[in-house]
Amino acid sequence: MSARFQQNLIEPANPPLVHDDWWARERLHYRGDRLNFCGRDVATLAAAFAEPLFLYDARRAAENVDRVLSALDATGFRHRLYYAMKANRFRPLLCELRHSRLHGVDVCSPEEVREALACGYAPEQISYTAHAMMPDEAALLAAFPGIHVNCDTLSSIELLGSVSPGRSIGIRVNPGIGIGYGDNDRLSYAGAKTTKFGIYAEQFDEALERARRNGLRISWLHCHAGCGYLDPQLPSFRHVLAAICEFVRHIPELEGVNLGGGLGLPHRAADRPLDLQEWRHAIQSSFAGRDLEIALEPGDFIAKDAGMLVLRVGYVELKRDRLFAGLNGGFNLAIEPVVYDLPCEPVPCVRREGPRRQVTLAGNINEAMDLWASDISMPALEPGDFVALLNAGGYASSMSSNHCMRGQFRELLLQ
Amino acid sequence: MSARFQQNLIEPANPPLVHDDWWARERLHYRGDRLNFCGRDVATLAAAFAEPLFLYDARRAAENVDRVLSALDATGFRHRLYYAMKANRFRPLLCELRHSRLHGVDVCSPEEVREALACGYAPEQISYTAHAMMPDEAALLAAFPGIHVNCDTLSSIELLGSVSPGRSIGIRVNPGIGIGYGDNDRLSYAGAKTTKFGIYAEQFDEALERARRNGLRISWLHCHAGCGYLDPQLPSFRHVLAAICEFVRHIPELEGVNLGGGLGLPHRAADRPLDLQEWRHAIQSSFAGRDLEIALEPGDFIAKDAGMLVLRVGYVELKRDRLFAGLNGGFNLAIEPVVYDLPCEPVPCVRREGPRRQVTLAGNINEAMDLWASDISMPALEPGDFVALLNAGGYASSMSSNHCMRGQFRELLLQ
Repeated sequence: MSARFQQNLIEPANPPLVHDDWWARERLHYRGDRLNFCGRDVATLAAAFAEPLFLYDARRAAENVDRVLSALDATGFRHRLYYAMKANRFRPLLCELRHSRLHGVDVCSPEEVREALACGYAPEQISYTAHAMMPDEAALLAAFPGIHVNCDTLSSIELLGSVSPGRSIGIRVNPGIGIGYGDNDRLSYAGAKTTKFGIYAEQFDEALERARRNGLRISWLHCHAGCGYLDPQLPSFRHVLAAICEFVRHIPELEGVNLGGGLGLPHRAADRPLDLQEWRHAIQSSFAGRDLEIALEPGDFIAKDAGMLVLRVGYVELKRDRLFAGLNGGFNLAIEPVVYDLPCEPVPCVRREGPRRQVTLAGNINEAMDLWASDISMPALEPGDFVALLNAGGYASSMSSNHCMRGQFRELLLQ
Repeated sequence: MSARFQQNLIEPANPPLVHDDWWARERLHYRGDRLNFCGRDVATLAAAFAEPLFLYDARRAAENVDRVLSALDATGFRHRLYYAMKANRFRPLLCELRHSRLHGVDVCSPEEVREALACGYAPEQISYTAHAMMPDEAALLAAFPGIHVNCDTLSSIELLGSVSPGRSIGIRVNPGIGIGYGDNDRLSYAGAKTTKFGIYAEQFDEALERARRNGLRISWLHCHAGCGYLDPQLPSFRHVLAAICEFVRHIPELEGVNLGGGLGLPHRAADRPLDLQEWRHAIQSSFAGRDLEIALEPGDFIAKDAGMLVLRVGYVELKRDRLFAGLNGGFNLAIEPVVYDLPCEPVPCVRREGPRRQVTLAGNINEAMDLWASDISMPALEPGDFVALLNAGGYASSMSSNHCMRGQFRELLLQ
C-alpha cells in the first residue's frame, strides 16, 4: 500500500486554510479540494477499505503529550503524565505512546492492567484508579506492587490493605465541586449532588485511619472533577484546586497530587482551545511553596483530535422537505455525539465545487437518534463520497458496540 | 452443573407475591427471601460465575411470542411474526426461538442476515429492513432471493432493482406520526420532525415509479413508528394505522402490511402492561374488509422481560450523606437505563430482613452517569450479595461495549 500513498507524502509549505476550517492544522487540512491527514489523501486511503475507518495521527498524540508536559514544566513542580487508556486502547497507539515523554498509562480495570502490560508498560508506569474494588482486583494489584493504586472508597482501602500491606497508595478525594464541558450533567463527576466517586471531606479522617490500621501509607491524593473543561471552566478548576489543598494539609508526608484528566478540546467552531498557560498558572499558584509532584492523566486531550472516523456516503436524498445523506457507520462506533452532545465535526474528504447545501448526516443504525449532524451546511455530497468525522480519536472505538451487528471497523496508525 | 440446580427445579404451587413485586410472575418470584427464576435460585447460580451474568428464560420468550400471536389470531387476518434479533442475538436464544411459533427473524444489517442463517433460519424466514443500503448489502440480498426486503429509501429501491430485478419487495413508509414510551424524544421514529426512516407520502409516488422502472413488485408496506408503546400511546398507534391505510389504498395488489415492532412492556411499577386486546382491536378495525396479511416484528416485547442481568455487590458505603452500593457491572452492559431512561428494576437475589434503606446502585465504569438506580428503597445489601436487574433481556448484551475493558459477561439460557 505504501507506494500508493507516496505521491501524497509531501507537506505543502503553506496549507490553504479556509475560514470555516477551524479545525485545520499542520497534517490536517485541505490540499485544494481534498482532505489531507498526516500527508495522506484521506479519500484515497479510505477507498482501500470496505469498513468504517479510524485514522490516527501518532505524531499529533505525541505532540499533545508534549503540550501538556511543556505547561507542567513551566510550573516548576516535579510532574508525571499518564495517558488514560480508556480513551483509546488501539494497541499500535498504546505502543507508540510508550515512546513519547509519557510517564505511563492511567488504567481503571483489571483488564486494562493486563492490556497495558501486554503493550510493554512496566508496572511502575501504571496508575490504577477504578471505582470501587472487587477481591479479584485487589489480588491482581497485590501481584504487581509497582502499580500505583488510588483508592476511591473506604472499603477498597480495607480490601487492598488486607492483601497488599505496606503499600504506598493514593486516595481519590471528591471536592464536591464539578467542572465540565458546558452545562453537561452527564459529565459532572463531583458537583453539588453527591456522586459515587472518591472520598468526601466528611469521610476523609476515616479513610486516613483505615489506611493506617491496614498498614498502608498514603503518599498521593487523586482528584478528577469533570470532563472536557475549557477556558470558561477554569474558575471552577481553581475552586477544585483550592478544595484539594484542604485535603493536602491533612497529610504532611504527601508526595504528590494527581489532578485527574478532563482537559478539554474544541468540538465546535465556537469553542476556543484551552489556554494551557492559564491552566498551569492555576496549578502553580494553588500549590506554591509545597514540595509536591503533580500528576495528570488526560485521555481525550491526547487522543481525541489525533483521530478521525471516515465513513462512506450510501445515499443522498430528500425525505419530505429535509435532505439526508446516509453514512455506512452509526453512533455505535462513536457514541459521544449522541449521548454526551460532543459532536464529531463532519468534513467531506473531497470538497465539491458549487453551492453548499443544508443536509442531515444519518448513521446506518435502526435508531431514530442515530444522526451525525442535523441540518448543517456542507458542500454537496454524492453516494460513494467519504466524510471524515473529526475528533473521533477518544471514547469512540474504545466504547464501540456491535449494535445491529454493525460494529465492524478498521483502525490505522499513521506516521 | 445440572445436578447442583436439581434441588431448585420444583415450582411451588402458589409463589408468594409481595405488594411491591410488581414484576413477579410464574418462574420469576421470591421463594421466601430468595429470588427464583425458571425454578433456579438466582444467587446460587450467580455464585458459580465470576463475571456479570445474563439469565434468559427461554419459555418466557416463547410465551411472549404466543401472546402476540394469540392477539393476531383474534384479528382474523393472516399474519406472521418476526423476532427483531437486534434486541438479543444470543445464539442459544435465537436457536430456541426457531422452535417457537415465530415465522422468522427481522434483521437490519448484512451481518444479521449471516447470523440468522448461521442459527438455522431459512432465507424465507428472514425479513430485512435496514436504513439505506450500500452496494455490498444489495449484492448479499441478491444472493438470497427468499429474503423479504423492505426498502426505506428511493435509492435502495434503485440499488436492489439493479441487482435483483423481478423481486417482490416491501416499502417502508413514514406516516409522519410518532409513538413511544412516555415523551422520550430518543425513541421517536416518525414524529412531526422529519426522520431518516422510510418514505414519506411526498415521495411515495416516486417510490412506486422507481420500483416499476426497476422491475420490482411492491407486495408489502412496512411501518415502524416508535418504541415501547403502552396503553397511553394506543390512540397514537391508531393514528399511525390510519396513516398507513392512506398508503395502502395506492397499491391495489398489496399482499400485506408489516407494522414493525415497538410493543412496550412495563419498566416501572407504575407502568401497566399493554392491553393486547385493545391493540388487536385497533389493527382489526383499521384494516377491516381488506384482504391483507399482517406482520409484526417486536424485539423487546419478546426478549426483554425474559432476561435479567445479575451483578455482585462490591461495596456498600456512605459518601457524604448518600448511601452507595457498587456493583461489578456498569452501563456498558445495559445502556437503556442511562441513555433511554428505561430502567432495569433492581431486585436483591436474597432479601435481607430488617428495615429497608435508601440506596444508590452504582456501576463500575469510571463515568459519572453510570448509576443503575438513584436513591431507591431496598432491603439492606452487603458486599458479596447479588442484585438482579430485571428487564435486561432486550437491547442490553446486544448493545454492550468493552468500555474501560469491563465488557466481560456470561449468558445462560434457562429451560
